[in-house]
Amino acid sequence: MAKLPKKRDFPVSNVRRYLEPGPIVLVSSAHDGRTNIMTMGWHTVLEFTPSLVGCMISEGNHSHDMIRKSGECVINLPTTALTDIVVGIGNTDGDDIDKFAHFGLTPEKAQKVAAPLIGDCHANFECRIHDDALVARYNFFIFEVVKAHVAETPKHPETLHYTGDGVFMVSGKIISRRAKFRPDML
Amino acid sequence: MAKLPKKRDFPVSNVRRYLEPGPIVLVSSAHDGRTNIMTMGWHTVLEFTPSLVGCMISEGNHSHDMIRKSGECVINLPTTALTDIVVGIGNTDGDDIDKFAHFGLTPEKAQKVAAPLIGDCHANFECRIHDDALVARYNFFIFEVVKAHVAETPKHPETLHYTGDGVFMVSGKIISRRAKFRPDML
Repeated sequence: MAKLPKKRDFPVSNVRRYLEPGPIVLVSSAHDGRTNIMTMGWHTVLEFTPSLVGCMISEGNHSHDMIRKSGECVINLPTTALTDIVVGIGNTDGDDIDKFAHFGLTPEKAQKVAAPLIGDCHANFECRIHDDALVARYNFFIFEVVKAHVAETPKHPETLHYTGDGVFMVSGKIISRRAKFRPDML
Repeated sequence: MAKLPKKRDFPVSNVRRYLEPGPIVLVSSAHDGRTNIMTMGWHTVLEFTPSLVGCMISEGNHSHDMIRKSGECVINLPTTALTDIVVGIGNTDGDDIDKFAHFGLTPEKAQKVAAPLIGDCHANFECRIHDDALVARYNFFIFEVVKAHVAETPKHPETLHYTGDGVFMVSGKIISRRAKFRPDML
């Protein structure tokens, strides 16, 4: 892998900056001496403070159990530099392989959770389960982001947005309409 | 407005094609003889069949009550052609104005719900409330998409993805990794 991005602390109340545009993310978890990584595209910001993110993590994923039992995970934001790794992780089962080793990713110690950060990603959001009321019915976890780390550059990372059928939309140009927003809507 | 896009029926089990990449959407509703439109960026696909979408609709929005009382809404997908209207709708209160008239949008009759489609949008997803278990705690509605309409062209519409602070990321190039996906993961 290339040199790992240098990161700074980031306010957890502002994770919508990275998650609201809908990128594919990598979810890392740890339980009982093992780690795992899965791809996830079904997630939404739910609240600024506490910083809540809702995520659909299918019961068929090995990660589902690890997250439920440990109560924790890390949501990692990959860029297009990791496209083939994102696809590879989606194709493989964490029961069979150590995904960090297999894909040459760098685990880094998190500050507030036991699950490892993926150092190669642009941003890492340490999460704890906040509410599991809808896990049984919809595999829908509500996490609180308790710590956020974001790479210093680039300001607008090139993220992957899945559309199904093996096709990703890549983030494009940035447009600002800041001057047209009512100040309390920003 | 420009000529309205010509639409075809679209399988509801496949709405992830348009919603999973995380676009800003416009939610239209109707109740008690009035209609309303709001912008929404906090949503996620939850299931293919039934076609479920989870949406955070803040209690502060006039639409929240209208949707709760009518049990229905339409999720409409705008493209960058509507950027300033998207911002304008976010800035205004449905209590004060008729947003269709004010923004020159074209209401169209839906097939399965009373709320109007926004004809000017690239796609329209008719929704009914499927589960309101998390509405009181998180303003989180789970809708079932009961009918979908999608413009015939373009195949990949230029969508808006909000990052906060008045800044949108616009959808960019498309990349396919179809050949690298395990067939059952497509």
